[in-house]
Amino acid sequence: MEEEGNNLKGEEAFRNTMMLPWTEQITVRSVVTSFVLSIVFIFIVCKLNFTTGIIPSLNVAAGLLGFAVINAYTTLLNNCGILKKPFTRQENTVIQTFVIAASGIAFSSGMGTYLLGMSPYIASQVDGGNTPINTKTISLGWMFGFLFVVSFVGLFSIVPLRKVMILKYKLTYPSGTATALLVNSLHTPKGAKLAKKQIALLFKSFCGSFAFGFFQWFFTAGDDCGFSTFPTFGLQAYSKRFYFDFSSTYVGVGMICPYIINASLLLGAIFSWGILWPLIELKKGIWYSTDLPSGSLSGIQGYRVFTAIAMILGDGLYHCIIMLIRVAYSLITQYLKKRVSSAVDPEDVDQNSSEDFDSQRRTEYFLKDEIPSWVAIIGYSVLAVISIITVSLIFPQLKWYHVLITYLIAPILAFCNAYGCGLTDWSLAANYGKLAIIIFSSWVGLEHGGLIAGLASCGVMMSIVSTASDLMQDFKTGYLTLASPRSMFVSQVLGTATGCLVSPLMFWFFHKAYTLGDPQGSYPAPYGEVYRGMALLGAKGFSSLPKNCLELAIIFFLLAVFINIVRDLLERYETKYRLHRFVPNPMALAIPFYLGGYFAIDMCIGSLILFLWEKKNKQKAKDYGPALASGLICGDSLWSVPAAILSLAGANPPICMKFLSRAMNNKVDTFLSGGH
Amino acid sequence: MEEEGNNLKGEEAFRNTMMLPWTEQITVRSVVTSFVLSIVFIFIVCKLNFTTGIIPSLNVAAGLLGFAVINAYTTLLNNCGILKKPFTRQENTVIQTFVIAASGIAFSSGMGTYLLGMSPYIASQVDGGNTPINTKTISLGWMFGFLFVVSFVGLFSIVPLRKVMILKYKLTYPSGTATALLVNSLHTPKGAKLAKKQIALLFKSFCGSFAFGFFQWFFTAGDDCGFSTFPTFGLQAYSKRFYFDFSSTYVGVGMICPYIINASLLLGAIFSWGILWPLIELKKGIWYSTDLPSGSLSGIQGYRVFTAIAMILGDGLYHCIIMLIRVAYSLITQYLKKRVSSAVDPEDVDQNSSEDFDSQRRTEYFLKDEIPSWVAIIGYSVLAVISIITVSLIFPQLKWYHVLITYLIAPILAFCNAYGCGLTDWSLAANYGKLAIIIFSSWVGLEHGGLIAGLASCGVMMSIVSTASDLMQDFKTGYLTLASPRSMFVSQVLGTATGCLVSPLMFWFFHKAYTLGDPQGSYPAPYGEVYRGMALLGAKGFSSLPKNCLELAIIFFLLAVFINIVRDLLERYETKYRLHRFVPNPMALAIPFYLGGYFAIDMCIGSLILFLWEKKNKQKAKDYGPALASGLICGDSLWSVPAAILSLAGANPPICMKFLSRAMNNKVDTFLSGGH
Repeated sequence: MEEEGNNLKGEEAFRNTMMLPWTEQITVRSVVTSFVLSIVFIFIVCKLNFTTGIIPSLNVAAGLLGFAVINAYTTLLNNCGILKKPFTRQENTVIQTFVIAASGIAFSSGMGTYLLGMSPYIASQVDGGNTPINTKTISLGWMFGFLFVVSFVGLFSIVPLRKVMILKYKLTYPSGTATALLVNSLHTPKGAKLAKKQIALLFKSFCGSFAFGFFQWFFTAGDDCGFSTFPTFGLQAYSKRFYFDFSSTYVGVGMICPYIINASLLLGAIFSWGILWPLIELKKGIWYSTDLPSGSLSGIQGYRVFTAIAMILGDGLYHCIIMLIRVAYSLITQYLKKRVSSAVDPEDVDQNSSEDFDSQRRTEYFLKDEIPSWVAIIGYSVLAVISIITVSLIFPQLKWYHVLITYLIAPILAFCNAYGCGLTDWSLAANYGKLAIIIFSSWVGLEHGGLIAGLASCGVMMSIVSTASDLMQDFKTGYLTLASPRSMFVSQVLGTATGCLVSPLMFWFFHKAYTLGDPQGSYPAPYGEVYRGMALLGAKGFSSLPKNCLELAIIFFLLAVFINIVRDLLERYETKYRLHRFVPNPMALAIPFYLGGYFAIDMCIGSLILFLWEKKNKQKAKDYGPALASGLICGDSLWSVPAAILSLAGANPPICMKFLSRAMNNKVDTFLSGGH
Repeated sequence: MEEEGNNLKGEEAFRNTMMLPWTEQITVRSVVTSFVLSIVFIFIVCKLNFTTGIIPSLNVAAGLLGFAVINAYTTLLNNCGILKKPFTRQENTVIQTFVIAASGIAFSSGMGTYLLGMSPYIASQVDGGNTPINTKTISLGWMFGFLFVVSFVGLFSIVPLRKVMILKYKLTYPSGTATALLVNSLHTPKGAKLAKKQIALLFKSFCGSFAFGFFQWFFTAGDDCGFSTFPTFGLQAYSKRFYFDFSSTYVGVGMICPYIINASLLLGAIFSWGILWPLIELKKGIWYSTDLPSGSLSGIQGYRVFTAIAMILGDGLYHCIIMLIRVAYSLITQYLKKRVSSAVDPEDVDQNSSEDFDSQRRTEYFLKDEIPSWVAIIGYSVLAVISIITVSLIFPQLKWYHVLITYLIAPILAFCNAYGCGLTDWSLAANYGKLAIIIFSSWVGLEHGGLIAGLASCGVMMSIVSTASDLMQDFKTGYLTLASPRSMFVSQVLGTATGCLVSPLMFWFFHKAYTLGDPQGSYPAPYGEVYRGMALLGAKGFSSLPKNCLELAIIFFLLAVFINIVRDLLERYETKYRLHRFVPNPMALAIPFYLGGYFAIDMCIGSLILFLWEKKNKQKAKDYGPALASGLICGDSLWSVPAAILSLAGANPPICMKFLSRAMNNKVDTFLSGGH
């Protein structure tokens, strides 16, 4: 993963570039740009959270857009004849870090997951535990407070270990490395030229996607109107939520996600909505009562939610355990190796043998600006204390000792996660959060507000674990772009603060404009119900499930574990055909259980476009695919801003594009001709 | 126009190719292929006739498809190891000629114009002259009879003049030359390679367009359903017939038609439906009665039809006169030149000076297989006599002396048209037909069946004039591809016969499956009403027009003439900016008067695609544009075959895609929720 693309010769390309001190890597222009882009990306992440909860990697988009903005700005000033500082790759890295940190908060702040799951609206849909002590009305005040106290702790928890992870263990951090490669390439002449073309394409697809979103809006007067209700494969399939909904966002997301994820989503949709639910619906009246409201967890919806939860938990647990084993194994072998090569100080860098120019230079800059360990330790302790007090005040259901215990376990899990992420690029933050839900909600119990306690502890846990691994990714990026660890840390802090400030506002905005979490609406926010379901499972145990649902859930739990085992075994022992590439992803299989297949179809179309493009011109597809996809995602997502404003202002679209069966259409035609 | 493309060096490229006698240029495989392709193209022309009446040049499509079929066939046989004759360019020319002749009949047989105008259904819409003597029920029998007797006369009328036109006057015949260049290029190695790629693209766009047509079908349960009712620019614009109707056919047609034609159509649509008709509708109750049926020619529809007719007639008359002047001028200068260069026999070839290899070889083959003049003269006379008897039997309203007069004038007009077509590529056959309508319907008079007489004489006139110029085009193609005049003549005869046989059948097929000529339906066949309107104008005079319509019609008639004069003057005297390119085409301006702008938008989108493509890569757009367009036209048009069969079989689409205004949608939603 250390090779740098064809056109780059590593640090050689930058030998004559002047290096700025870390305080000058964080400039006013970069902070302003970052802030603006952060708002954009937080918005996009929120929108994705509220629609399907599938969030692709937005690193490339952030990198390209940051570069485009600053580049446009410097070019403009240059043309005006005003003196300007050159745009350095360190500055670019700072922007990237800031934006990704901010949009990371939009994810880990649980706007579409644990916080949403606390709301009375979601509680009213999940029919167990809908008591005042188990709900918390959404309000901006406590959300700001909660996010600010929990989000910064993670940053301090991992800082002292950065040298071990980056220099000693030489962990890969694929995303961080890829980002660094992108940033480095943008600042070479050839890379800048490609970047210009990529940005042009991104801009075009942005405009196209925005315009298409705008166009679609006109046809959505009323429910069940518009392109998003297009029964592409017929009305029968539509009733099974199997249709193409013309969402350019998810076509773009599909282009970024790996083929196997999209295929798994489609498979999950076909299996669940095509086979399993129809079979279970045959038992209506036997397995579950016929006169339940359609969203009740005691009815068919219960089977959908709990099998999905089982699969997600099975997948998560497997990965947690495997990760712990891997980390332990990796640390032990490191330790044994060190013993054999007669002990160097672990805080030292292994500078033995002929180190090349790249590593030397990178290590030099990485070590230049120290962040003393005592700062980190004091920072963590102080923040943890503040957090323990504040969180137990905000959520009286969660006692101070619960939070304290979380803060004692969290650094260990944060280390495991950061280490695992460095090895595999997988952050398991959400999985650790889910475990916290189950543990704390069953500990506190339903009658003492176990649901809220579980969901809140999930937030505490997730924030620490996820910000820790994000920070380590950024350190790796900084290491490869010679950005100072201090400027990385500061931009991460600024990004986190932005995220904590903007995410709740964005949530509030959506909350006011639409009904979040309505399974039939435009923003079903599936994970709200799923997370609450997990808490219910923890607090109430299996008694909350409808008949035979436990058996099904166990089957799916085991299935998830089994699929993972098969994949890992194939990956290890079957290297000829590399069949492990074709083993579906259990998490991706589970998501459509709840939502249906429509977004899976969007995403598969994204895959199809990319596939055909790759067949035609592999290099072009590789160079421009992400730019096209980012444009599609950003354009369509940002159309939601004016759309939401229009909705708030009470402006309604003029036309309804309606799809009626022939029989229904005859009735309507008769009605219309009779009525006029 | 004689240069041969970059990669060809004229006849040099074919120096070593064996030449076959003319009887071997017409092979079984070429006749079978031609027959099949003819059916396809007749179908497409009929469909275009019945939708808007705009028929683009299908030469390239016919050339490519003919080449593809025979090539596939010979490659297949070759791979099977069976001995095969090589596929020569003469054979290819034969196919081309056959197919274009057959589809030419589909146009000149008046299925969408004069024959349709006779039908009682159209008569019932045009409220003057709807008497039994002025209508003729469509039936296959008399249509076959009529077409067979009138279509072959034209071929003989022009044969004796071929040497004068091709060798002596060296007329250009742009379409014929272009076809020959295409055929020649297909038979060089580089051309064949390009052809393969073009055919691949044609095939892909064919499949895409066919599949899209199929997809659209599912959403058309009921009237006002489906993509063709998509109010792309809002419901207001839709009510003014201004919307994009997702017809890939017309997007393809737009790619083939020149930019100025498409722009003129759009301009005409905006001017008429956006400005003129709304203004006239303000006079409802003053200029015309309020309680007329919507299609009545005494109401707003009358203004639409008669202003369009006025403009078409103005344009046609201008061109007829200019053409006569040009032909006369050109003949006089030829004659004067000849007198100066001291008289060569006009039947002789001017072989003076250093003739190059190309011309020499071409002339040699052109003169090899003679068609004696006496054959032509006897053929014409015999056929004319048969025709006079048969036509006056089929249409008792048209007396034998009417037909005789037509046959006396026709050869002169045929010569003028063939000559003019050689100079400008414009066939004015339809214009001569329109003049015949006016003359004969006013001669016979309304009470003696003037409408039928006029329309029938239009058919007689149009057939002669149009087949004559088609044949001359083909002789030019044959001259340039060294195909024998005899094989050209025979394939033209075979093609004409195919056309006479298949066109009425195709008409019958559409007639059974749909209502042809319903202004609100899928097949409005606008020219049916327009041609009948002309006959009415001739028979009844101006008394048939609603109030102020005559004044408007005169304005538009003069406007058409004026526009033409301006264009011609600019073309002649303003060579700097070549502004004449931006003068709209009066005929194209007039067509949307009746139909509205929807197909103009399709066609402008075709233009836009081509424009962007040309901006990106001019050569590629030039090479592949026609192939893409042909695929779009053929695919969507051929989907009409299964669609019509489904309609005949009574299979209805399952879904209605409906567009309702918000208010209407609320009503419907209330009705639906109340009803269930």
